[in-house]
Amino acid sequence: MKRALNVGLIGHKFMGRAHSHALRVVTMFFDLDVVPVMKVICGIEDDLEEAARRYGWQAFTHSWEEVVNNPEIDIVDIATPGNTHWQIALAAAQQGKHILCEKPLALTPHEAKEMYDAAEEAHVKHVVNFNYRRLPAVALAKRIIDDGQLGTIYHFRGTYQQDWPLDPNFPFIWRMDKTIAGAGSMADKGSHVVDLARYLVGEFEKVACSSAIFVKERSLPDQIHSRRQVTTDDAAVFIARFQNGTLGVFETSRMSAGHKNALAFEVNGSKGSVVFDLERLNELKLYTTSYPKDTSGFRTIMVTEPCHQYVRSWWPPGHVLGWEHTFVHQYYEFLQAIARDSASSPSFYDGLRNQEVLAAIEAAAVEKCWVRVGQSRGDA
Amino acid sequence: MKRALNVGLIGHKFMGRAHSHALRVVTMFFDLDVVPVMKVICGIEDDLEEAARRYGWQAFTHSWEEVVNNPEIDIVDIATPGNTHWQIALAAAQQGKHILCEKPLALTPHEAKEMYDAAEEAHVKHVVNFNYRRLPAVALAKRIIDDGQLGTIYHFRGTYQQDWPLDPNFPFIWRMDKTIAGAGSMADKGSHVVDLARYLVGEFEKVACSSAIFVKERSLPDQIHSRRQVTTDDAAVFIARFQNGTLGVFETSRMSAGHKNALAFEVNGSKGSVVFDLERLNELKLYTTSYPKDTSGFRTIMVTEPCHQYVRSWWPPGHVLGWEHTFVHQYYEFLQAIARDSASSPSFYDGLRNQEVLAAIEAAAVEKCWVRVGQSRGDA
Amino acid sequence: MKRALNVGLIGHKFMGRAHSHALRVVTMFFDLDVVPVMKVICGIEDDLEEAARRYGWQAFTHSWEEVVNNPEIDIVDIATPGNTHWQIALAAAQQGKHILCEKPLALTPHEAKEMYDAAEEAHVKHVVNFNYRRLPAVALAKRIIDDGQLGTIYHFRGTYQQDWPLDPNFPFIWRMDKTIAGAGSMADKGSHVVDLARYLVGEFEKVACSSAIFVKERSLPDQIHSRRQVTTDDAAVFIARFQNGTLGVFETSRMSAGHKNALAFEVNGSKGSVVFDLERLNELKLYTTSYPKDTSGFRTIMVTEPCHQYVRSWWPPGHVLGWEHTFVHQYYEFLQAIARDSASSPSFYDGLRNQEVLAAIEAAAVEKCWVRVGQSRGDA
Amino acid sequence: MKRALNVGLIGHKFMGRAHSHALRVVTMFFDLDVVPVMKVICGIEDDLEEAARRYGWQAFTHSWEEVVNNPEIDIVDIATPGNTHWQIALAAAQQGKHILCEKPLALTPHEAKEMYDAAEEAHVKHVVNFNYRRLPAVALAKRIIDDGQLGTIYHFRGTYQQDWPLDPNFPFIWRMDKTIAGAGSMADKGSHVVDLARYLVGEFEKVACSSAIFVKERSLPDQIHSRRQVTTDDAAVFIARFQNGTLGVFETSRMSAGHKNALAFEVNGSKGSVVFDLERLNELKLYTTSYPKDTSGFRTIMVTEPCHQYVRSWWPPGHVLGWEHTFVHQYYEFLQAIARDSASSPSFYDGLRNQEVLAAIEAAAVEKCWVRVGQSRGDA
Repeated sequence: MKRALNVGLIGHKFMGRAHSHALRVVTMFFDLDVVPVMKVICGIEDDLEEAARRYGWQAFTHSWEEVVNNPEIDIVDIATPGNTHWQIALAAAQQGKHILCEKPLALTPHEAKEMYDAAEEAHVKHVVNFNYRRLPAVALAKRIIDDGQLGTIYHFRGTYQQDWPLDPNFPFIWRMDKTIAGAGSMADKGSHVVDLARYLVGEFEKVACSSAIFVKERSLPDQIHSRRQVTTDDAAVFIARFQNGTLGVFETSRMSAGHKNALAFEVNGSKGSVVFDLERLNELKLYTTSYPKDTSGFRTIMVTEPCHQYVRSWWPPGHVLGWEHTFVHQYYEFLQAIARDSASSPSFYDGLRNQEVLAAIEAAAVEKCWVRVGQSRGDA
Repeated sequence: MKRALNVGLIGHKFMGRAHSHALRVVTMFFDLDVVPVMKVICGIEDDLEEAARRYGWQAFTHSWEEVVNNPEIDIVDIATPGNTHWQIALAAAQQGKHILCEKPLALTPHEAKEMYDAAEEAHVKHVVNFNYRRLPAVALAKRIIDDGQLGTIYHFRGTYQQDWPLDPNFPFIWRMDKTIAGAGSMADKGSHVVDLARYLVGEFEKVACSSAIFVKERSLPDQIHSRRQVTTDDAAVFIARFQNGTLGVFETSRMSAGHKNALAFEVNGSKGSVVFDLERLNELKLYTTSYPKDTSGFRTIMVTEPCHQYVRSWWPPGHVLGWEHTFVHQYYEFLQAIARDSASSPSFYDGLRNQEVLAAIEAAAVEKCWVRVGQSRGDA
Repeated sequence: MKRALNVGLIGHKFMGRAHSHALRVVTMFFDLDVVPVMKVICGIEDDLEEAARRYGWQAFTHSWEEVVNNPEIDIVDIATPGNTHWQIALAAAQQGKHILCEKPLALTPHEAKEMYDAAEEAHVKHVVNFNYRRLPAVALAKRIIDDGQLGTIYHFRGTYQQDWPLDPNFPFIWRMDKTIAGAGSMADKGSHVVDLARYLVGEFEKVACSSAIFVKERSLPDQIHSRRQVTTDDAAVFIARFQNGTLGVFETSRMSAGHKNALAFEVNGSKGSVVFDLERLNELKLYTTSYPKDTSGFRTIMVTEPCHQYVRSWWPPGHVLGWEHTFVHQYYEFLQAIARDSASSPSFYDGLRNQEVLAAIEAAAVEKCWVRVGQSRGDA
Repeated sequence: MKRALNVGLIGHKFMGRAHSHALRVVTMFFDLDVVPVMKVICGIEDDLEEAARRYGWQAFTHSWEEVVNNPEIDIVDIATPGNTHWQIALAAAQQGKHILCEKPLALTPHEAKEMYDAAEEAHVKHVVNFNYRRLPAVALAKRIIDDGQLGTIYHFRGTYQQDWPLDPNFPFIWRMDKTIAGAGSMADKGSHVVDLARYLVGEFEKVACSSAIFVKERSLPDQIHSRRQVTTDDAAVFIARFQNGTLGVFETSRMSAGHKNALAFEVNGSKGSVVFDLERLNELKLYTTSYPKDTSGFRTIMVTEPCHQYVRSWWPPGHVLGWEHTFVHQYYEFLQAIARDSASSPSFYDGLRNQEVLAAIEAAAVEKCWVRVGQSRGDA
């Protein structure tokens, strides 16, 4: 009989729901060497009990310490806002729990470093949930690049565009408050793009950045006459050098009219290119120089076939997946890493390096000059 | 406390899995007035027990009669091959069970008529699972048309292209045997396209058709030297007149190189057009004549916003759904229809009318002339 | 020194302008073995002199007989409405002129046959201007098919959608009068689609068709209260069998909202597919089964490279061409055929066979049953 | 009778041909108040006579001074490499000729300033040929932005990707030599993107840049063993602040596998967005917040209708234009500006400001920090 792994999930809102769903269906579609058990969910709002029932958790609690200190719990899943990750993760590591933590890992490289060190010292598995690595199309891009099908990489262009607060009457929310959110689109959206760049191309060397707050004041919800100053960036543009010489160019924005969740990237190398867009996440565009010139062109690959990663576990060929499947794939990888005591990925190390890039971007936006990645780390 | 509805699912393969998944997650995301209980799953193959455990069914059985006759069961879900639907559905209706049945409803209009009559007489809810009606994009197309935004409908073009047996070495399977499958792509794929045409435009009046078997013989699996004759169509093209004067043009094929699951349609009316493609199921293209000419063009609507049907229950704006979500939506509608004793849809009536169109298409392919829909019904 | 060929162009409106432009630039971009001379243009309207001057013709005349009987003239270019082609072409052939004639070649297969016979007997070069054969993308599709890259052809789907008279207030024009235009979209648009089908796939065997007049009455221009009955089809759908077993499916419409000049086709074969759309005429989509499965997909070929037909004569790689270039290419081919006394193509034979298919479609629309292509020819 | 304007064209290669073609057809399609006469073409290579004959020039000469000093000449058209523009333009201005000059206007802001001053002092019309302003789709984008349909502009993203020297065996050519070409993709491709940014958004304030030479050495043509060092950039990425606060992000590359001539931009504002790609130059994508949410989406406008700029002069609706049409439109505007003594555009002033931005980008790439546009001007 397979070993059971008891999960304690902290957070029951958007991310808590996505993680719950992943646990609920991963056993149905994937062959696991262990059995995850939805033991306890933790939250601080009134609808927690309803959520626990709906999502299928055996118990619920308002105390995250209770979860972390519960000797029955094997896995602590941190799906709370970023300013709480550090505290919870350190405690969980201390209790020897395996940890899956939402991104960005922390608010600063310093915090991230402590989390990484704590998890390593505790010899637990640790994963930061950069879930888009687990898209079949992104996994295919990764394999194509690692196989050398694109040759030497020259360019990475990454953009993440949304438009949810485009309307100036959209109210002030916590994401617009620097003291809580740290940064705006450059961190919230940027962390995903930066992770994909690191995953596909390699480490950043330095960055230059400019950011903007387009709507400088907004009303509080239901208080039209009470204005608050927006202190996080609405958008940022940055360019980068990677350690291997690749040129990087980036744009993150929550004010790009018409784009709902448009995370897109293009990678160009000496032998080919790949192009991806999250709004069409079942597709990958690929160009290679290896085919006859007169019939060459970008191929639109439907990444929905049994030969593509994770796809065989779902449906027959051509049946497209959705956004939430990434969480299922991530949990599958995480659980198998625990079961087989193999490397988990993306790990807190990835979370730390990501944080260092974000810190450099933020510093560059302020200092208005090129900033070397890792430099700002000691300052924290 | 909400009423529990016990479900018995017959079939545990591809469709059985999709239905199980729907039941497993519908309660997590949708506000239901009842609580479905995954009581028993029925199948005839060895892996049934494993499936029951994985999918989360309380029990399993190899006898469908046992399910149908079980007084605890409220809903019989028929997810078996088409040649078994008639028998099971009649028995289920007789026992007063609500019925959700996979498409196509039956093998002939005669069978379908009996199923429809039986369900009506039993006063049970009956649904045939034309799941693509439950895509947010298709629901939006329906509303746009019903609102009159396209004006009078002139054209419907529907195509369903796949390529799974394109390789002549792909083995002979049951779908290629007329005695089991009835027809080939024109029924298997055609039933979906015909349903969408009926849903969006209205009833068919008459059809002309041509079909082909491109690879006439195939080897049995693992028996390369044993050849079997293919007796179902690889592809069919047909044209139609609808009762309201709309012109229809259709193509179904399992031999269209490069297409994995490409169900597509276009509807043109006196004031606009909509275009849909299942390979990009989160999008709907819309053109209307109501906007200034110089900035008119087909709009690519991301049907992923809270204002779109079913979307609010899932994730924030811009988070795309996958193929399987249609089953969840269908179960939601079905369960609510039972709870509220309201009309269920698409009903066995839709299944019956669909079967009549398929019969006319099949007759037209044989007789090589125009065939009026409904005429062949009395002959059965 | 190169031989001069004197051209007499009959028609100075839309097509006359396109032909004039072709003559004006063909010598600039293409290496010709002869020198075309823009000798005389013929028309019946007042703006003829202005057109002659603008387009660069040496002379103009209101009498087509004068052109045809002028011993200096080597080439008669017929760019007038279809009901005049027969008379002019017969006279031109009799005078031993080479003939380039606009499509459709004539109004009936009978007329077309006489034109073809007359041109053949006169041993002159004769071309019917199915200009889309001369698109680099279509030429590439042709070569791909002839090379066997698609294997055995299974499917041809062709659509031609426009929306210019969509508004019911669009006035009655000659194209809506059966006595002048013969047929509506099925001939005007259909002739192009049918030609591409014949070019790429082969000869038609039989057709079934349905057509419609959606707006049955329209006002005369500037006479809102004077209504005329529309007697040509707004749209037609037809299916076909080709002699080689290919299935064909077609739609032509001038009432497809949002489509301006959307001539599109898809060809599927045992080894691959090609897809084309005139609104993106510099592109061809290609899928072949010859590449690794995990990176297979439709390639979007930019048909703008020196390796593509006609492209080297224009601009450097990646510089897209427009609609009118097809006429330049056609004239290039025609002039070279005369210079080298080689076969000209598409010839009046193609015009004749095209007419036979159109006649069968028209008959099928009336008789409401399958019509064999060529059968109706003797009746004329 | 209309006034004749005698044109002297200097340069007979790629650009010379495009300009000749424009002169050859502009009178055919556009209503001009003057008549351009193709008087003399100037070049230094052996095939000049052949070019003169083909393109339709009355005379040819190897001396540009002869053209500039010819009292019969009204317009000097400079279509030579960039390092010759300054000398010719100054002389032409001194002789009181109207000047159309290829882009980039000069090699430095200093040169450009002198050219602008000279032309202004001579009271002649002066145009720098940023031809993409003359695309109907770009003209539409401009009008949409000027009309306020996008609201306040937040973002401009511009990319220009090609791949012609991607193969490391592609030989060394003059464009790779800094002493001749000045810079690589950042100037050659960058000047177009920068012009479109200035045209649509406004003046640049400052830039940060990184550039790369990916293939550092190449063989001379036909001399495989003789290697030369590449001294111009293969690619550059830069970010910018515009004076009005808009964020800019840019990428230029001649090493982007699969892209042939992909000049693309996106502009996002507080009320909408536009997207353009030169490889589909007849289309413009537009999103505005002014339509109902549930049917909002990017519209793909076919910019091929009579209501779109320049289109009415060509063909009926839906007939797509090609790359070369931009030159015709530019000549039309230039000739009309002379005829009516109205402002010509884009003028040498635009050429100058463009040069200043390019100089800042180049300085930023070297100095590795933000550079204010205009600062480097005084240094020259």
